Amino acid sequence: MPQSQLARLLRLRGDLNIDFIESAALRDNALGDPSNRPVAVYLPENYDVEGSKRYPVLYCLHGYTGDVAALVSARPWETNVVQWIDRLISDGKMPPAILAVVDGFTRLGGSQYMNSVHNGNYADYVVDEVIQYVDRVYRTIAREGGRAVLGKSSGGFGSLYLCMTRPGAFAAFASHSGDSYFTYAHPPAFPALHRTLEKFNWNIRAFVEHFERQNKRQTPEYQTIEMLGYASAYSPRSAKAFDLDLPVDRKTGQLVDEVFAKWRAYDPADMCLTKKPELERLRMRYLDCGRRDEYGLDIGARIFTQRVRDLGLKVVHEEFDDDHRNVGYRYAVSMPLLANALEKE
Amino acid sequence: MPQSQLARLLRLRGDLNIDFIESAALRDNALGDPSNRPVAVYLPENYDVEGSKRYPVLYCLHGYTGDVAALVSARPWETNVVQWIDRLISDGKMPPAILAVVDGFTRLGGSQYMNSVHNGNYADYVVDEVIQYVDRVYRTIAREGGRAVLGKSSGGFGSLYLCMTRPGAFAAFASHSGDSYFTYAHPPAFPALHRTLEKFNWNIRAFVEHFERQNKRQTPEYQTIEMLGYASAYSPRSAKAFDLDLPVDRKTGQLVDEVFAKWRAYDPADMCLTKKPELERLRMRYLDCGRRDEYGLDIGARIFTQRVRDLGLKVVHEEFDDDHRNVGYRYAVSMPLLANALEKE
Amino acid sequence: MPQSQLARLLRLRGDLNIDFIESAALRDNALGDPSNRPVAVYLPENYDVEGSKRYPVLYCLHGYTGDVAALVSARPWETNVVQWIDRLISDGKMPPAILAVVDGFTRLGGSQYMNSVHNGNYADYVVDEVIQYVDRVYRTIAREGGRAVLGKSSGGFGSLYLCMTRPGAFAAFASHSGDSYFTYAHPPAFPALHRTLEKFNWNIRAFVEHFERQNKRQTPEYQTIEMLGYASAYSPRSAKAFDLDLPVDRKTGQLVDEVFAKWRAYDPADMCLTKKPELERLRMRYLDCGRRDEYGLDIGARIFTQRVRDLGLKVVHEEFDDDHRNVGYRYAVSMPLLANALEKE
Amino acid sequence: MPQSQLARLLRLRGDLNIDFIESAALRDNALGDPSNRPVAVYLPENYDVEGSKRYPVLYCLHGYTGDVAALVSARPWETNVVQWIDRLISDGKMPPAILAVVDGFTRLGGSQYMNSVHNGNYADYVVDEVIQYVDRVYRTIAREGGRAVLGKSSGGFGSLYLCMTRPGAFAAFASHSGDSYFTYAHPPAFPALHRTLEKFNWNIRAFVEHFERQNKRQTPEYQTIEMLGYASAYSPRSAKAFDLDLPVDRKTGQLVDEVFAKWRAYDPADMCLTKKPELERLRMRYLDCGRRDEYGLDIGARIFTQRVRDLGLKVVHEEFDDDHRNVGYRYAVSMPLLANALEKE
Repeated sequence: MPQSQLARLLRLRGDLNIDFIESAALRDNALGDPSNRPVAVYLPENYDVEGSKRYPVLYCLHGYTGDVAALVSARPWETNVVQWIDRLISDGKMPPAILAVVDGFTRLGGSQYMNSVHNGNYADYVVDEVIQYVDRVYRTIAREGGRAVLGKSSGGFGSLYLCMTRPGAFAAFASHSGDSYFTYAHPPAFPALHRTLEKFNWNIRAFVEHFERQNKRQTPEYQTIEMLGYASAYSPRSAKAFDLDLPVDRKTGQLVDEVFAKWRAYDPADMCLTKKPELERLRMRYLDCGRRDEYGLDIGARIFTQRVRDLGLKVVHEEFDDDHRNVGYRYAVSMPLLANALEKE
Repeated sequence: MPQSQLARLLRLRGDLNIDFIESAALRDNALGDPSNRPVAVYLPENYDVEGSKRYPVLYCLHGYTGDVAALVSARPWETNVVQWIDRLISDGKMPPAILAVVDGFTRLGGSQYMNSVHNGNYADYVVDEVIQYVDRVYRTIAREGGRAVLGKSSGGFGSLYLCMTRPGAFAAFASHSGDSYFTYAHPPAFPALHRTLEKFNWNIRAFVEHFERQNKRQTPEYQTIEMLGYASAYSPRSAKAFDLDLPVDRKTGQLVDEVFAKWRAYDPADMCLTKKPELERLRMRYLDCGRRDEYGLDIGARIFTQRVRDLGLKVVHEEFDDDHRNVGYRYAVSMPLLANALEKE
Repeated sequence: MPQSQLARLLRLRGDLNIDFIESAALRDNALGDPSNRPVAVYLPENYDVEGSKRYPVLYCLHGYTGDVAALVSARPWETNVVQWIDRLISDGKMPPAILAVVDGFTRLGGSQYMNSVHNGNYADYVVDEVIQYVDRVYRTIAREGGRAVLGKSSGGFGSLYLCMTRPGAFAAFASHSGDSYFTYAHPPAFPALHRTLEKFNWNIRAFVEHFERQNKRQTPEYQTIEMLGYASAYSPRSAKAFDLDLPVDRKTGQLVDEVFAKWRAYDPADMCLTKKPELERLRMRYLDCGRRDEYGLDIGARIFTQRVRDLGLKVVHEEFDDDHRNVGYRYAVSMPLLANALEKE
Repeated sequence: MPQSQLARLLRLRGDLNIDFIESAALRDNALGDPSNRPVAVYLPENYDVEGSKRYPVLYCLHGYTGDVAALVSARPWETNVVQWIDRLISDGKMPPAILAVVDGFTRLGGSQYMNSVHNGNYADYVVDEVIQYVDRVYRTIAREGGRAVLGKSSGGFGSLYLCMTRPGAFAAFASHSGDSYFTYAHPPAFPALHRTLEKFNWNIRAFVEHFERQNKRQTPEYQTIEMLGYASAYSPRSAKAFDLDLPVDRKTGQLVDEVFAKWRAYDPADMCLTKKPELERLRMRYLDCGRRDEYGLDIGARIFTQRVRDLGLKVVHEEFDDDHRNVGYRYAVSMPLLANALEKE
């Protein structure tokens, strides 16, 4: 079978398909996001449709404001996650593996890969539908020991979250600059959330439609939609579109403790304390973060690491001298570790 | 008496003295900061040393990283607080008043105008020593009704703090972008504090000496010294230099709740709840903040305002479209209000 | 024929192919850039391979540091040029047309779509090879009157350059923030060029290899490679890799007039003065630029416009309130004008 | 005689006077700038009014947008030029000397210390009036060999300019990041000049009054007033206020060669070629510049240095790793060299 056009465009040795899955879990979601979703599947060189060899699968989750299209996008002098795995395998730095890039985008910028009465059931979608699809269509090692999950930022969060809440789905994770320790990560954007929505008289729909219409957007507008995205995952109020509990008081902007407590219920830095069994069954746990991360996620990675180690479990934890952006080069560290940790045939 | 050189340099109609006070309250402080402190005293045009007219006094507190020298500094096209009052009086926008600029700088960047076992007793210094000096040397209305306090940023904090803890000292305050609601204001700098001090192996003295030696400093270094300044005011551990409780865990960087609780004990947004009597005796309460304040102090001003109004007291509260820096033009709003609120002869 | 995977990923109504052309013009170029090049061909909805209908073609040239992969890349809330034409046609804002995205990337970041003894013959490649390929494979109006060229930044330059030097290839151009008036555009980067290459002891190859190896790059490094890219187009010294005349004196950094004169020989603002016949035969001439363009290209567009108008020719010239980046929304203005200007069947 | 208040505020060991000179050279200037000007005179510790000891004098020229008040301004952790000389003398790093800070500010931000039909005769003012005043009032070595001139940015320019055009005034200069090689330094701001004045319909007075009225100003507005300041020095059209030749074409923004040629007539990088006699008589020539200077003035310093060395004269030339701002720490290098080069008693 010849390489896909996209694989050639990215100058891969392996191949890259963009498949589409019709998701029951996402059907009729409140935001009107499509239930038909792309999954980008990278196949290593010499992958043989007809052959008998089976491969482990790395599931890659994009970050907030990302999607599958963004993750397979390419720019000169940059290396996307698909190009990284292709190069690592070619260079003999890791064993051949399949990479599946999963789509968790919503109209509010991201689902955090969680089930939400508001957004749809993205956790079900990933774990029940995407995995099943990939196992059915490709030559995978179709069991827990053959699957890992990784991602950056909200994709790192998703990796941690799914491993802690869906035991049996994955045998390893890598969280790059993943959301953790919400105490530092999110409140710095709350003033922007308050100021922006006040301008829209607290009409979230009006703000979102304004946001979508703009040719260019300001930083506070990006911060606002980001906080709305988190609210849609952590503190949805109902299945009605844009019906969300917000962590700021409308009048003053003050933190609303009850709502932020709902958010923190999903903070990996806290969740891990009660998830020893789920974490224990993993073959590998990997976190890293830049020591200049703008969201303080390096602190979050340290707390998670220490707490999981205090549970008696091993964690691979790395830090590096960089900020939150464009840290894709860290895949060169995580993907070989993941692939080596997984079952081979 | 001819104008001072400095008054001429600033092209004032009134006059400007830089006097020095030898402070008992600051004597032998741990940091080795001078106990001999400047106070800049602005005298309005026609102020007559020999005359019988007496004037109300506005006490101006500088912000963090400021001092008296910085506040009387001048730059083309900019207007400092002394130039503002001079212009406002000349233009008939406010009645004549004396302005006294008080020095609260420490080697860690600022005292928050509080008594501290570590820094020295800056509240005593301001209220017991500076006021007494000004009343003794200048033709003031030497009683509560003739005094107001104002400042920007940490100077706004100091104004709030001294009014709430030293009843009888001042009859009015103006807080411009003053520290309030520490929940938003300070934790965003905690990762920088952690990262920087970890590099110095938690030797605060070594960091400070490094900081002082540099020709130029990076943002995280400024954030670090700022947090140390707050720790020296809110959570000093002893009278030993650099012996401070820090709000971050050394190992992970996590928020240390007990220490941050010590900080929050001085948060104006909370303190006001128990300070009705002190606030009630004031003739005027003024707060403003830019609605793009980088520290979220607009939220802090709203919370303070709402809570004090809930106590049944009036607050003048304004917002404007600007960030935290260079908002000296707001003095043009506050100083006339303060001067008009004070007793006249 | 079903839509391509990429068309579905971009949620197009039309279709998108990534074809590859083996270029004779680029063969054995000094930099070792591939002679096998992608061309992305957008086909409007209802395009019928078997039908008889023929379409005009818009040739889109990417900017410096761009390539075909980058131009077809997609991000949430952003609209790439392919998505724009698809939307404009769907919304009835323009007649159906084919869009061909051409690749002019080199190891130095861009070819300016010119023939260069150093880079290879990119003008020949575009005009002789890409056009021929598209006309052969797709249902085009295969003559001058059926073709327009457009692009942003260096892609705008290429559009102007090819229309002025290859009469008969295209019947219209649109230059968005296109390079023009090098006097303002390029010298601001010459100090960075000098400082950076001095560090590499004027070994251009060493710098380029360093540049390629980095995970992240600094602004002066980007400025340097950009200037090298222009030198490779405007002032190559030989067919030996990295053998370029530079517009800065090695010892002082001073402008080298003779070299910069070679650059300016290709400045559209000057070239147009002698290209009346080539410009006259065009059906439409369109330029726009943001009035905050960091390279002063708004000035360049004004000069070009005025001079061409002084030749007695019409120019559509627009300005808008934006800077140089992310101005893809301007395609919504230019593409309908281009498509309407071209021959229909 | 006790220290001045300002000297105490700056915590000097020496003393600091702010004197005022009524200038004939500046009388009735078109812009209405004051003819009564401050000069700040630093006197080293142990300076004895009654004594017989005489001191060399360093004349310090502020930069564009500076003035005497700004140069003697102080901020915590920063060291102004007066504090530097005081510290250097105290530390035994240089012999005692007087420092005189000269005022060359105009309503357009700076005079470049040149005679201008538009601004007034600032060169005469400095050389004929300020020097005479200082020599009359203070215990100076009142001859060429006892005087040096130094400054940063436009103050560096002024130092070079006055040494090249007023032989006999000074025996040495130090130019820190001084304006040189206008080819790189100024055209990058010409688009901003064009865009801003177009908004004001080319009414310079209206723009300046708008500029002065603002509480805050944007970068393009600062760039515009800066270019107007240079025009007032290099290309004034008449003695009528705001009657200036501008280096940009009103219609397109294109460089106007004839006007820019007038500017370049004062470019130190060119002027030096014909000023061998003036430069030769100097005892010391010092230039430095940061190798990240935003205006490319490092290139300008290199060209000047090379050309003067080609004349057979010695130049002390240093570079350092910094940009254009806050490089006052370089005074610690230049002032000892200057003081040592001057005559002692």
